[in-house]
Amino acid sequence: MCASEREKAWVVASHSADFYGRFAPGADDDRLMAAALWVYWGFGFDDARCDTGPLSTRPAQFNALAGQVQRACETDTAEYGDRFVGALQDIMRRLRSFTPPTQVDRFVQGHRAWLSGVSWQIGNQSLGRMPGLDEFLVMRLLSSGGFPTMALLEPATGAEVPDREMNRPAVRALTEMSIMVAALDNDRHSLRKEIGGGQTDQNIYPVLMAEREIPLQEAVHEANALRDRVLRRFLEVHDRVRPTASEELATYLQGLRYGIRGNHEWGMRVPRYLSLGYWPDEMEDAPLTYAESPSDTRPGPIEGAPGVAWWWHADLV
Amino acid sequence: MCASEREKAWVVASHSADFYGRFAPGADDDRLMAAALWVYWGFGFDDARCDTGPLSTRPAQFNALAGQVQRACETDTAEYGDRFVGALQDIMRRLRSFTPPTQVDRFVQGHRAWLSGVSWQIGNQSLGRMPGLDEFLVMRLLSSGGFPTMALLEPATGAEVPDREMNRPAVRALTEMSIMVAALDNDRHSLRKEIGGGQTDQNIYPVLMAEREIPLQEAVHEANALRDRVLRRFLEVHDRVRPTASEELATYLQGLRYGIRGNHEWGMRVPRYLSLGYWPDEMEDAPLTYAESPSDTRPGPIEGAPGVAWWWHADLV
Repeated sequence: MCASEREKAWVVASHSADFYGRFAPGADDDRLMAAALWVYWGFGFDDARCDTGPLSTRPAQFNALAGQVQRACETDTAEYGDRFVGALQDIMRRLRSFTPPTQVDRFVQGHRAWLSGVSWQIGNQSLGRMPGLDEFLVMRLLSSGGFPTMALLEPATGAEVPDREMNRPAVRALTEMSIMVAALDNDRHSLRKEIGGGQTDQNIYPVLMAEREIPLQEAVHEANALRDRVLRRFLEVHDRVRPTASEELATYLQGLRYGIRGNHEWGMRVPRYLSLGYWPDEMEDAPLTYAESPSDTRPGPIEGAPGVAWWWHADLV
Repeated sequence: MCASEREKAWVVASHSADFYGRFAPGADDDRLMAAALWVYWGFGFDDARCDTGPLSTRPAQFNALAGQVQRACETDTAEYGDRFVGALQDIMRRLRSFTPPTQVDRFVQGHRAWLSGVSWQIGNQSLGRMPGLDEFLVMRLLSSGGFPTMALLEPATGAEVPDREMNRPAVRALTEMSIMVAALDNDRHSLRKEIGGGQTDQNIYPVLMAEREIPLQEAVHEANALRDRVLRRFLEVHDRVRPTASEELATYLQGLRYGIRGNHEWGMRVPRYLSLGYWPDEMEDAPLTYAESPSDTRPGPIEGAPGVAWWWHADLV
């Protein structure tokens, strides 16, 4: 799958097994392996074909590639020349070997959602267009890859959440909010790297700086506040849903919680975000400290973000 | 939603109520209304924003619009300026008022699949690139709008197909094959119009002409053969699945069958495909005749189309 030793080194330096092990600490090795392989694959694809590769400003070419990759995710028989396709089909065969069709379908739908977000991001990039806050949050929800990542919780844990529970608005909101928190945390993790690279990528800091006409320091503060408000709402909805959840849904919800924390612990140490050199450094082992209290306790919805306002609907729970 | 009387006249001339009435002949008025409204909306959006509008060769702008439209489909609170957004949100409110979350989610996922296909098509168009047969079939499966259209069968009929049945590979293949037959029929319906317009749009005829280096006359013959082979496989798989289907699944499968026939009857008469003037003509009432036998009875898979070869997997049924 990788075109060079260096590309492979950076894929390995994503420490995706460490990453997904934190999402599903109780998973059997075989299940964790399949999930981790997809995450490695996703980071490799992201680096070579999305964020920084030659297609990163070519939406027409990326749309076609995304269509082919998605079909390869769905269909064993599809044949495409791109070097990432065969690897994805291997991983999907592995996943299908122990995963019921409904859980595979949820992953496949999440995969398409992710690629649609990347298409959106690449389109903006090609136009040199920095989205406003509302557009950014909806796009980032998709482009972060959180939907397929969270859809791996069922295969990883073996939980099979009934449709009726999975599609409850409160459960959908919890999935989206956990993805949003993790995505904003990732923006924070890679901040040093983004600044170092002199890029003006679409992430929460330039978006807030432009939308609210504030300097970076303040944007960091406001992004933290925004993130904390989403996490607080996540906890509030979670605590109302969990007591009446089936065992399967409880496993899934616990996975979202593990995912938020695990993504953060991983992201604070992973060379993918921290190494600034040509080759990735070793994984760091820095101790992590957490604030005693959230930086912002105002109830939502977040001002100027109608695209995610439904998370605060009173009748959600 | 419409910018002019003429645009409105063409939306009305899609006769979407006639169209969807054929898909769900037993539907209550309220259910049929919601489904038909989405079809009207879809044709309007398609004309103004996809195939022929100013975005038809601007993938970056279309990707962003597609992301917003999709979010509006999912979320009542989203706010976007495009004139099609509010109308879609009205229709979704109506649909949600009588449709369980799982069926709404299936529609929403189908809606995203459709927009991903349109993005792919617009990307190709912007590059002046005619896809090969395999790429075309996978793209057309998405861009035809068949996934959201077929996902309206459950809301329209009130059937709630259990997850386990809906995600059976055979049922997924039946959904895809019914969409493919209808999409190829639509290419045939609009052939006269496409030729008249002097366009070289991406449809099955120029694709086959380029891939197989044949004239239009032969491409028409080969497209019919291809279509008949898919329909024959549809019937074969259907007849094996139907006897053990639950009542809900049987209703859905019957909807796919009605859809194939209904789409064809509608497409042979509808001004959308037949009227060549500035304003649409009245609906035609031409009698329809059918061939006595399929034009091609060779078993599949279709040569040179690995992206859809799985429909012929021996272990599908």
